Formats: sequence, C-alpha cells, structure tokens
Amino acid sequence: VRSRADCERLDATDPLAGFRDRFALEPGLVYLDGNSLGAMPRGVPARLAEVAEEWSRQLIGGWNRGWVDLPGRLAARLAPLLGARPGDVAVADNASVNLYKALAAALTIQGGRGPLVVEEANFPTDLYVAAAAAGRFGGRSVARVPRPELLERLTPGSVVTVSHVDYRSGHLLDLDRFTTAAHAAGALVVWDLCHSAGALPLSLDRAGADFAVGCTYKFLCAGPGAPAFLYVADRHLGRAETPLPGWFGHARTFDFAPDYEPAPDAARFQTGTPNILGLVGLEVALELWAEVDLEAVRRKSIALGDLVVERVEAVGAGLGLELASPRTAAERGSQVTLRHREAYALSQALSERGVITDCRPPDLLRIGLTPLYTRYVEVWDAVEALLEVLASGAQREERFAVRQRVP
Amino acid sequence: VRSRADCERLDATDPLAGFRDRFALEPGLVYLDGNSLGAMPRGVPARLAEVAEEWSRQLIGGWNRGWVDLPGRLAARLAPLLGARPGDVAVADNASVNLYKALAAALTIQGGRGPLVVEEANFPTDLYVAAAAAGRFGGRSVARVPRPELLERLTPGSVVTVSHVDYRSGHLLDLDRFTTAAHAAGALVVWDLCHSAGALPLSLDRAGADFAVGCTYKFLCAGPGAPAFLYVADRHLGRAETPLPGWFGHARTFDFAPDYEPAPDAARFQTGTPNILGLVGLEVALELWAEVDLEAVRRKSIALGDLVVERVEAVGAGLGLELASPRTAAERGSQVTLRHREAYALSQALSERGVITDCRPPDLLRIGLTPLYTRYVEVWDAVEALLEVLASGAQREERFAVRQRVP
Repeated sequence: VRSRADCERLDATDPLAGFRDRFALEPGLVYLDGNSLGAMPRGVPARLAEVAEEWSRQLIGGWNRGWVDLPGRLAARLAPLLGARPGDVAVADNASVNLYKALAAALTIQGGRGPLVVEEANFPTDLYVAAAAAGRFGGRSVARVPRPELLERLTPGSVVTVSHVDYRSGHLLDLDRFTTAAHAAGALVVWDLCHSAGALPLSLDRAGADFAVGCTYKFLCAGPGAPAFLYVADRHLGRAETPLPGWFGHARTFDFAPDYEPAPDAARFQTGTPNILGLVGLEVALELWAEVDLEAVRRKSIALGDLVVERVEAVGAGLGLELASPRTAAERGSQVTLRHREAYALSQALSERGVITDCRPPDLLRIGLTPLYTRYVEVWDAVEALLEVLASGAQREERFAVRQRVP
Repeated sequence: VRSRADCERLDATDPLAGFRDRFALEPGLVYLDGNSLGAMPRGVPARLAEVAEEWSRQLIGGWNRGWVDLPGRLAARLAPLLGARPGDVAVADNASVNLYKALAAALTIQGGRGPLVVEEANFPTDLYVAAAAAGRFGGRSVARVPRPELLERLTPGSVVTVSHVDYRSGHLLDLDRFTTAAHAAGALVVWDLCHSAGALPLSLDRAGADFAVGCTYKFLCAGPGAPAFLYVADRHLGRAETPLPGWFGHARTFDFAPDYEPAPDAARFQTGTPNILGLVGLEVALELWAEVDLEAVRRKSIALGDLVVERVEAVGAGLGLELASPRTAAERGSQVTLRHREAYALSQALSERGVITDCRPPDLLRIGLTPLYTRYVEVWDAVEALLEVLASGAQREERFAVRQRVP
C-alpha cells in the first residue's frame, strides 16, 4: 500500500465493506478508538424502543417472554466468536467481577498450592482483582511478573492471568502455545480477552483454555459498559465453583430453593437479576456478528495495521515518532501503538481534525483498528493527519496541553 | 372505605394522583405487581434514544461528557430516598453482588469473631450469598434463624443480614429498633431493602444503620434488572473494604495506577465499567422520585393495604382466603399477601381479568401496592375480581393450573 489510491482500491474490493453502513457513524469522522468503545450498530435505538415497550406493556410478564433466558441466548451466540461451546460461556456483570469469579474458581481448583501469577503491566483492574482474589481463594501469594517471563514463573498448582492482547502495546500472545506451556508447568490460565474478542478469531476449546473473561464494549460493539462474558472449559465444570452464587446462577432459579445448586453449565457464573436494557446493545451487536467472518476481520486488521506501521517507519523517526507495538503482525492485536512524548497533545490535535485516537500515559498514542467499520482510506488519512500535525508542530498549541485523561 | 364510591372520592383528593400519568400503563390494566417489577416512567424511551445518540455521536467522548460520573450522580439522587448522605451510597452491579460486598465488608470489620446470622426465610439469593461470604470473610458459621428469633442469636462480633420487608408476607421490621438492639448485642446489620426502597420513608443515617443493599427495579421503577445500590455508614468508611476492587471503585480511576486505592466514599463499592444504557431507567425514575413525598407514599400505601385487609377479613374466610401479611399496617410493607391453596390459579384467573398479581409457591398470592400509579378504585376492583373468581370457582378451570412459575 503506497498511496491513497491503493487504499481506495482495497476498499472497493473489501469483503467487509458492507458492514460499515450497519453502524451509526458521523460522516467525515475517522474513528480509531474502537478498542476503547466500539461504534453503535444502527439497530440499537429501535431495539431499545422495543424493549422499553416490552417493559411498559408486558410488565412482569416480560420475564416469561424472553428476558429470563436472554443472557443465556446471548452467551450461546457469543460462543462461536470465542471458539467455545454455548454451555461454556456466561454473559453477566462486568469484566472485573467476572475476572474475580474466574480467578476464584481457578484458585479453588488448584487448591491454593501455588502462587497467582499476574502480568505486572496488565490492565489495572486486573491487578486489583487478582490481589483480592488471591487473598481469599488460596493463592499463596501474588507474583507480578513481566509479560515475557510469565511462563517461567509457573509452578504446579499455580494460576496465571494475562491479557491476550496488551492494552497499551497491542502485543498479542499466542493463546494456544501459552496455554499448552502453562499446562505443562502445572498451571491454569485465566485469559483476559477484552482486547481480542471480536478483533481476531479465537479458539478457546481447541486451545484447551481453562477460563477466560472479557468485555463486550470494545471490538464487539455492545455499548458503553455492556455486560461481560466468562468462559469456563467444559472439563472444569465439575469443580468450577462461583464465589458469587446468585439466584440467576442457580440450577432452578424460580424454585426459590433455600440452598444453592449451581446451574450445570457456565450459567452458574451469572449472579443476580440481569439488566435487560443493558443487554440490548449486545443483542443487536451479536445479530450482526453472526454474519461476520472473523478470519476476514483479522486479515483486514493486519492490512490496516501494516499500513500504519509502514508509513510510520518510513517517515516517523525524524518526527520523534516510534512504533510501540510489535513490528510483526502475528504478534499484534487490532491496534497500533505509537510512542511520542507529546502523545496526549497529538491525540487532541488529531481529534480537532476529525481523527479519534486515544492516549495512554505518559507517551502512547493508540490507533485502534476495527475492520467492520474502518476503511483503508480512513487509516491512510489518519496517518497523513498525524504526520501533518507533527510536521507543523500543531500539537504544541497550548489548548492541546494535558487537561484530562480519557478512559 | 366501604364502597367503590369511597375509593373514587379518595382518588379525587389523592395528593399523588398526578404521578399516574408519568407512567406508561395500559388503560384498563390493574397492575399490582410493582413489588416485582415497577411500571415504566414515560420518560424512559426518550432518554434511551438520547443515550443511544450519545453513544453513536460522542463515541468514546461520552465518558467525559457525563457517563463516568453517572453512577455517582444517581447515587447522590437516591441517597435522600434512603435517608443517607450522598457519599454513603453507591449505585453498581446487582443486589446479589452488592450483598456479597456488604457482607464481606461487615464480616471483615467484625474480624470473624462471631457467626453470620441470616434470616432462614430470606430471599434465596441472600441465603446463597451469605453462605459464600461467610466461608471467605471470617464468619465462623452461618446461622439460619427464624425472623422473630434473629436478635436473640446475636453475639459480639456477629453480623446479621435480614430483609427489611419480607418478600413473601410483606412483614416490615422496625429498622431503627432492630438496628439499636443488634448494636447493643455487638452485631453489625446488613439490611436488604429490595422491598422497602421507594415503598416507605427510610432513615438509614438517623437509625445508625451499618450497611444496606437493594435493587431499584421494584418500587423505584428503574427497569428490569436495573443496577442496585449499596449503603455504608460514614463511620465505617475507614474500615469498610470491598472484596471486589475494580477500577471504577479506585480513588483515581483514570490514573491507571497499578495498586488499588479505594475511593474515599461509598464509590469504592463500584466495580468495573458501569453499564450506561442499563442506568437510564434509574436516571429517569430518580428525576420523578425527586418530586415525591415518601410520607405521602406511605400513607396511601397503608390506606390501600387496609382496604384489601378489611375486604378480605369481611368476606374472605368463607372462600378459603386468609391474610398472610401482618394485620397491623405498621408491621406491613407495601404489599398484602393472601393465602389460598389455589394461589397460582387465582393469579392466572385474575390476570385474564386484567388484574396482575403474583404467586409465591406454594400458596401465597401477593398484591403489591404502588401508590405512585395505583388508584384506590383499582385496588377495590381487584379485590372484587378476586372475590368473584373465588365465588364462581373460575380458578379451577384447567387452563389456570400450575404451568410455570413467574419471578
């Protein structure tokens, strides 16, 4: 890809091009922050109105006309995107709460024989939850370890939790190989898939994964704070206990039984009453995802990423811009992260030019790549805008100075 | 109240009558199940459409334009309905998860010195969560105790959890007196306010309450599965640890700090990213509640309840109908529960006549009273319909036999 014209040709033959119009996006806006919050599927407002109508007209009867099993239906539709059987996936709560549940279950299975090994640069909420879970569910200690050294710290009876794609650098672990190596060391793995679900094909069952959690509001486009998921391997269901046994995780919720009996499948990881309006975005998004070929998504994601990497390599060095993501596409999730000491101001200056990226302190500029709704020409234009800003020094204007950090 | 004409007169002078039109209710429907799911405030669909528009137009910027602090703003608006300071209330997750957090915090404060005392007939999810929390947070054991014997089982260092209003009988505890007696015994109390928030005035601060949780989808009318709340007394904040430390409970969420530092107030009991669409119903409902005098709600609730009680007492005995709620209004929440061996079929037969009640197995018919949108004549008509069904034996028609239990 050497020119904007090349990008136009790629867009013209893009097998995913038709999905763009399924999302509500402002004309002219180049949105490269779908790794923080995915764009809205156009069907959302209509479905929200329908569910409000269900609430107002069916009232309590709505629970018997589709609400009660909505989390289960969505889990079954999400499962293929994770490479999982429907019964191995629950949709519930948020990713922090689900990570707590998964870590508690994994630590309990391991019987507290080894440490809980955590990637030291993992997303902060993962670090907080890991420390809390280890203190209560038998991890002898929490070991914070750099990403490349995780495997060597594993011992029989240990549990390791790691993000499949690092939120800062976009570094992608080989899920199959990491899982196999961890098992060989006697460890169980709890994957955080926040930055990979919907970004690339996943094969949790085939990889022999143990547990996984993730949010649905990034690449999956289910809306701000939409419910999260939890995967548990079928073979662990006999021993995988939830630390949060709520009535919606009971085998027979509406028996009102005084004693807890876990649902036979991953539904045991549901907790209390599911938030029905809060599930609508995921419901609409998963209808769309049912039509998507994740292999095609990954191919386009790599092409978009390589486009950024090559342009930055060609002209970025003289502008103080470095690549902070892996050079090799196979080691990169669906983002390219650049390093520049004025990253925040750059992000602000780009925003004024209609290019939405984000910054992770102190010096990272993240360019999220969402093949369902991002065009090649948009990524080309975004890189050109970045290079123009840098060449002109526009980011040094006082109004772009650090004011507020965005999520 | 001796006649339908009396009811019409009461409706004509009802200070709450104006609120009826703020809810979307089908004409002709008598909805007496607001203790399971409150009716929809009319403003909900428009606000849902607005938030969808925020998502589609502001994208990630929505977090900086009102989403990040939405749970905190709603907690502050909810606080007066609980008799609490704004900083002592969090809006997060669901009631099961919040009960786990509150029990863990209370048990940790008590240092595991005594048992966790649980009302044996509490709502099932409370029983499940109590057992799980006691196993991990230092309650030496879980004692399941009948409601009238709770206080006598308390010992120094114990924690007791109980529903303010019992979901089956509607029995209302005296929150002030129970709290004072529990403290005298050396216990901390974790209140479940699911069936009292929005049903009657609450004064948690004045009562010296410790912790409380509740859902918002019953009397508060925030929608199916809407987020729950957690109250923690100001004096406990120094020692009240959340077992689920997520990034939205951190003192400075967007610092991305590697170590957890709890928010200085009840916001520490937030966990992961809040579900924005799932908060809309609560947002709209609380705008409406800001105009409501809870003392007036309670007065009308008592009048409606007495109406049911008196009619049932006058004519119910010959029809196999018994009062299962306390006779005395001061001991009753905002429902009247009747006992009949065909309770489920009765509820079905009433539903066919446009009167929505619900059944709790095996033999309880619950009549929920929601003064904001229920008229005196409706309650009169509902009781008449019930008596007609019973007199004719219509509930014995085969199609009303037990098929499915509703939540």
